[in-house]
Amino acid sequence: MNGNVGVGERRVIEIISSSIGKRCYDDVELVRVNNIEVALKCDMLVEGTDVPRGMEPWQIARKSIVAPVSDMASKGVRPLYALTSLALPKGLDEGYVRSIARGFRRAEMEFNIKIVGGDTNEGKELIIDCCMLGMVEEGSRFVKRSGASNGDLILVSGPFGYTKAGLKILLEGAKAEPTFRARAIRSVLMPKPRLRFGLMLARYATSTMDSSDGLAYTLHEMSNASGKRFIIEHKPIGRGVERFARDNSLSIDDLVFYAGEEYEIVATIRREHLDEVMSISRLTGCNAMIIGRVHEGTGVYIKDEYGERELKGYGWEHLA
Amino acid sequence: MNGNVGVGERRVIEIISSSIGKRCYDDVELVRVNNIEVALKCDMLVEGTDVPRGMEPWQIARKSIVAPVSDMASKGVRPLYALTSLALPKGLDEGYVRSIARGFRRAEMEFNIKIVGGDTNEGKELIIDCCMLGMVEEGSRFVKRSGASNGDLILVSGPFGYTKAGLKILLEGAKAEPTFRARAIRSVLMPKPRLRFGLMLARYATSTMDSSDGLAYTLHEMSNASGKRFIIEHKPIGRGVERFARDNSLSIDDLVFYAGEEYEIVATIRREHLDEVMSISRLTGCNAMIIGRVHEGTGVYIKDEYGERELKGYGWEHLA
Repeated sequence: MNGNVGVGERRVIEIISSSIGKRCYDDVELVRVNNIEVALKCDMLVEGTDVPRGMEPWQIARKSIVAPVSDMASKGVRPLYALTSLALPKGLDEGYVRSIARGFRRAEMEFNIKIVGGDTNEGKELIIDCCMLGMVEEGSRFVKRSGASNGDLILVSGPFGYTKAGLKILLEGAKAEPTFRARAIRSVLMPKPRLRFGLMLARYATSTMDSSDGLAYTLHEMSNASGKRFIIEHKPIGRGVERFARDNSLSIDDLVFYAGEEYEIVATIRREHLDEVMSISRLTGCNAMIIGRVHEGTGVYIKDEYGERELKGYGWEHLA
Repeated sequence: MNGNVGVGERRVIEIISSSIGKRCYDDVELVRVNNIEVALKCDMLVEGTDVPRGMEPWQIARKSIVAPVSDMASKGVRPLYALTSLALPKGLDEGYVRSIARGFRRAEMEFNIKIVGGDTNEGKELIIDCCMLGMVEEGSRFVKRSGASNGDLILVSGPFGYTKAGLKILLEGAKAEPTFRARAIRSVLMPKPRLRFGLMLARYATSTMDSSDGLAYTLHEMSNASGKRFIIEHKPIGRGVERFARDNSLSIDDLVFYAGEEYEIVATIRREHLDEVMSISRLTGCNAMIIGRVHEGTGVYIKDEYGERELKGYGWEHLA
């Protein structure tokens, strides 16, 4: 797509990780200081790739906090403190900066965190890097990407398809019914991380990840980390997504599996914990659903009336 | 200078700080998790403003770690862990990325820290945001910007003038003797934070700051935070700086007081601790020197054979 072919994001991560001797991956880092473990996460929001047209500055600032909150939530880690580093283009007016500040304040209240500092710089485009510190709650545990066992149920914290639909509406003028349109656009501009659900789920989940890189990619990462075959029997298709796909000649699978930035939690749980987990879902206002099961083997497959077929894992890659 | 006049960096910081209810400033944030205090700092390096021509990718990556290490060092905080968020332009080759990775590895060894994670993104220019976690050493203390008392000595961890000279040589072809030239360029490409000195100084300093925003600016911030008048009696002029200034028709004060990114520590100490502090300086390979004294009053003044005159506090400001 780009004449200037260079090294892709995953290769960059490989090169840097191998240099600093980092061999295993998870979505949040645990480090020990004195006798306690703290969790760290940084996430950089870049205007050119992460900010769709129509997003207000305060929504951009809020989103820069949503991303690491979602990662921490998926691991059972309560976010406590954040630092925000900004690169701002020259010539912004005070109103823009006030809106950014309002977004940070809103995120503080919404997720009960404290932004304790930051750094301000001049750059060619708006960039907000959020670095977050959190802790696993007492009596709970840090949930890894790996850990799924044969027979575990695969669960998502809510339906998929709205976010990519919202982008198609905002950026390409796709047609949609008013109710669906509002919900789809809202999922892009005001993403909701599943903080309360994630914190309570941690006691039961055998593995988790947030879905911010796309559902298919997330399922592949988890299947791979656990060394298990994931079979998806029910696609978590959001209400109205099928009709939206039909009206705009789009693929449902593309909307559901290959979007990203949905900030839902994907988890595996033991069968006997299903009732507890569904109670947690109701209690925290989620709409969690079982989408499949963990089996011996490798890979991610979709099973429906036509049989079993592989679900490809590709998703968005920066720099590629 | 720029037709597109917008809000300046200091105003941005004011707006955001007041929104998140942050009233006091220091250079590193202390937060409490369970019963222990940890120190957090983030620092964003932006290619367009922080990377002079002639800097290798590994030196850029190293510098992105030097900045927060220097801030922590000046507060008596030992840096332990870092996360690095990258924005990389498209089309970079593997060699460039390998060089970046080498710089991170080198910084890990040089400062005895562990880079535990990061985030990789696509952006219009190279940006590295380093977020660091550290701890005040047992038996030591966190040193603030404020705390200077009447009669305290004002100290810097080394002489000034090399960094701005180095930039003049690299960017404007200024003339310099070979030895001075090498030292000046080295101070730009391979800045040395005063980590060991800072950690040992913390037991004696009444206030400290690192000088990365320029010596004059730093002295003003400290004088202001302590509510004291700082009188500078000896300018910390690096060897060869006077001759370089003469040969290139530059102002010595400009080279010494208004450069920035020297990563020296500026501190106030009680008179009775002078011997201990000078021992620490020798022990850690610094060339610390007393440059003045703290008095009742406000402002920063230079006192020499011509009398006392105000030292203006302006320095570099992003976005202005």
